[in-house]
Amino acid sequence: MALDALRDVFGPRFSTGASDRALHGRSESHFPEMAPDAVVWPETTQEVAQILRHCSAHRLPVIGWGAGTSLEGHALAPHGGVCVDFSRMNRVLSVVPEDMLAVVQPGVTREALNGELRATGLFFPVDPGANATLGGMAATRASGTTAVRYGTMRANVLALEVVLADGRVIRTGSQAPKSSTGYDLTALFVGAEGTLGLITELTLRLQGQPEAVTAGLCAFADMTSAVAAVIATIQSGIPMARIEFIDAANVRAFNAWAGTSMDETPHLMVEFHGSPAAVREQAEAFGGIVADMGGGAFQWSERAEDRNRLWKMRHEGYYAARAAHPNAFPVTTDICVPISKLAEAVEETARDIAQAGIPGPILGHVGDGNFHALLLPDRDSPEQIAKAKALASALAERALRLGGTVSGEHGIGMGKLGYMQAEHGSAWAVMGALKAALDPLGIMNPGKMVRQE
Amino acid sequence: MALDALRDVFGPRFSTGASDRALHGRSESHFPEMAPDAVVWPETTQEVAQILRHCSAHRLPVIGWGAGTSLEGHALAPHGGVCVDFSRMNRVLSVVPEDMLAVVQPGVTREALNGELRATGLFFPVDPGANATLGGMAATRASGTTAVRYGTMRANVLALEVVLADGRVIRTGSQAPKSSTGYDLTALFVGAEGTLGLITELTLRLQGQPEAVTAGLCAFADMTSAVAAVIATIQSGIPMARIEFIDAANVRAFNAWAGTSMDETPHLMVEFHGSPAAVREQAEAFGGIVADMGGGAFQWSERAEDRNRLWKMRHEGYYAARAAHPNAFPVTTDICVPISKLAEAVEETARDIAQAGIPGPILGHVGDGNFHALLLPDRDSPEQIAKAKALASALAERALRLGGTVSGEHGIGMGKLGYMQAEHGSAWAVMGALKAALDPLGIMNPGKMVRQE
Repeated sequence: MALDALRDVFGPRFSTGASDRALHGRSESHFPEMAPDAVVWPETTQEVAQILRHCSAHRLPVIGWGAGTSLEGHALAPHGGVCVDFSRMNRVLSVVPEDMLAVVQPGVTREALNGELRATGLFFPVDPGANATLGGMAATRASGTTAVRYGTMRANVLALEVVLADGRVIRTGSQAPKSSTGYDLTALFVGAEGTLGLITELTLRLQGQPEAVTAGLCAFADMTSAVAAVIATIQSGIPMARIEFIDAANVRAFNAWAGTSMDETPHLMVEFHGSPAAVREQAEAFGGIVADMGGGAFQWSERAEDRNRLWKMRHEGYYAARAAHPNAFPVTTDICVPISKLAEAVEETARDIAQAGIPGPILGHVGDGNFHALLLPDRDSPEQIAKAKALASALAERALRLGGTVSGEHGIGMGKLGYMQAEHGSAWAVMGALKAALDPLGIMNPGKMVRQE
Repeated sequence: MALDALRDVFGPRFSTGASDRALHGRSESHFPEMAPDAVVWPETTQEVAQILRHCSAHRLPVIGWGAGTSLEGHALAPHGGVCVDFSRMNRVLSVVPEDMLAVVQPGVTREALNGELRATGLFFPVDPGANATLGGMAATRASGTTAVRYGTMRANVLALEVVLADGRVIRTGSQAPKSSTGYDLTALFVGAEGTLGLITELTLRLQGQPEAVTAGLCAFADMTSAVAAVIATIQSGIPMARIEFIDAANVRAFNAWAGTSMDETPHLMVEFHGSPAAVREQAEAFGGIVADMGGGAFQWSERAEDRNRLWKMRHEGYYAARAAHPNAFPVTTDICVPISKLAEAVEETARDIAQAGIPGPILGHVGDGNFHALLLPDRDSPEQIAKAKALASALAERALRLGGTVSGEHGIGMGKLGYMQAEHGSAWAVMGALKAALDPLGIMNPGKMVRQE
């Protein structure tokens, strides 16, 4: 049988055991388990190439696996096949402080990288919250709290090594800061969700740790004034490092989850990076906007441990909201709109959720126009689940009507495939043509990203 | 005949006249004239689609034309065909200050756009020097003096409308600041040099005009200390808006061209953007580095007209150098290396040029690790021309050996095609597969970018 040949090569680093398969067939969201037929743990690029040559020869599906933190079921295996788990390719290969870049294997997590960088005065800025792997973050074009300042994975991946469906190994990009030599293959593989090839090495741009960092938390009487403060801040050009919105339902969930005692009203969580003088100047300008919008006094966190507590709380927003509704069937949403449309998008969404009468806390990376309504219908109520799915569809339609996108950062996976035609129109067929060119047998993460035959 | 049908449709906006063909068969560099068979001036996306359907049906080559300022012969027509001149698609369609974006037709020049933006407090930052069209800048992934701060066209194009080879019209991207929905088609068409489709509309990111701007000029005793100052500046994280190097030969050419009286030694030209306090802080930090490296006193230009004169001089560097050697056969080079390798790259290059004994002024966007040696052999000396071509090859090999790229911003066109295999290895064949998927008949700018059959 086709799988047995891989067992012969990989020995204990290959498994068809039920528990290994089940662990690699689950997601952090509501999708049913879809397990691969086998899991393999390669240690080198050449081993990945060997797996892909074998799977091409036998037309076996191949699904990459990082940390399993996707919310859209990117790594589920609806057609079975071989899951390639990168957890043994987890070395930082080099750090070049003079060029502010690092070369890493795909299984390195962002926290592990930042741990290794601590002594260099540099950090990797992209912060999706979860401790995802850098390979997974590149494959899904992740972003998060700091994208408003430092960009998404699109801006922070300089070069890649990729193994194609047929086992060919290619390198994209270079270590130079820019290039104009040919098609931007790096950008093509970033966000391709493992449907064009498997990333086996990444060259990442690093940032200097800012001389001064100040973070803070500010309460608003209502959502409208909080969102108005965000819009005014972005339009005024203050170079925010982070500007996050959390609604009253989220604050309640945080208070229950983390034992905090925040006022249960909408809040903004912000962070400033720069020289001490620049941070002071930014914080003053922002404070002026907050006062104009009727926001409350700021609680500042200048000590690193206080800031870490603040952002840990924000990062656990998803888990806190789920813990508040343990019997929920979580439907995640992730729209992103032009900043001028943010108030309209958030307010319409909040009104729809209130009318539907199901829990739906709203939080998000509002400096980018990106927010999440986490819809939490009761798992045992088909009616609530149907309402949640209708709300998610309405949100997607709203995003497109307002010139935005159905997924700012969570990607497509299993969850958003149904919106690709609406968002991209005839460009979706172009994606299909590119897929067919690089993966003619359709073995790379099948069932995702492109129209199914 | 196939061309006559286009004449019937476009009337006076179609020409097979010798002078129109010759004007669209020339470049700003040393390439011989390669004229198209006809030139057409469409006014709408639908007209572009009509041209492409017609050219597909008759297998006629199609070459896009912006302002003709390419240095690598991107728009030459080695296989003849139809040149699509975008000069009549030159409208700014909308400016949305709240979202800091503009939607433009491809024939708008960067100076025209910035003229229209003046009253909004916004500007479009990418500045290649020449007054290129925005369509051409996107197609060639242009950058220039400000990329060190604001990025290249890759970072500043948010969405596109593109007409494919078969006449299909697609839209890529959205007006949201980020998205994770599918393959990054915007990035694929930016830099594709018209070989995958023709860009008919661009959505561009704008920047706020900085509150304060200061520019300056500083002399160094030698190239080594000037380059060392650049490296230290970039590594220290000062957010330079511009940092340009010009060597002594360039200064001599400027003095002759512009009637200036600068010391004929290497110089840096810099600019700072920010709040008044931030600009002061940056300039002080930079001044400290210059002093450490033995640089001379700074001549500051705080008035807009002085700054404009400074950057006009820089932008005319190419013309000034050519004017100093009117009988030259100009061979342009454009390597880009990691900043840690910049000193090695510049010094080896200067030494080789000196040994070859032909004029070769060096200048460049050194904050990005990008510099140009403009090789100026005598047009009537086959021996000098051969030496210049050997120097250009050695430069390209040097760039690759140092982890860089053969073209930081000038692109591939006719001039750098011979280096694609060396730079991209097996990834070049992947580019060929993408080209075949989107342009199966090979009518889009044939003879460029991919391996010829």
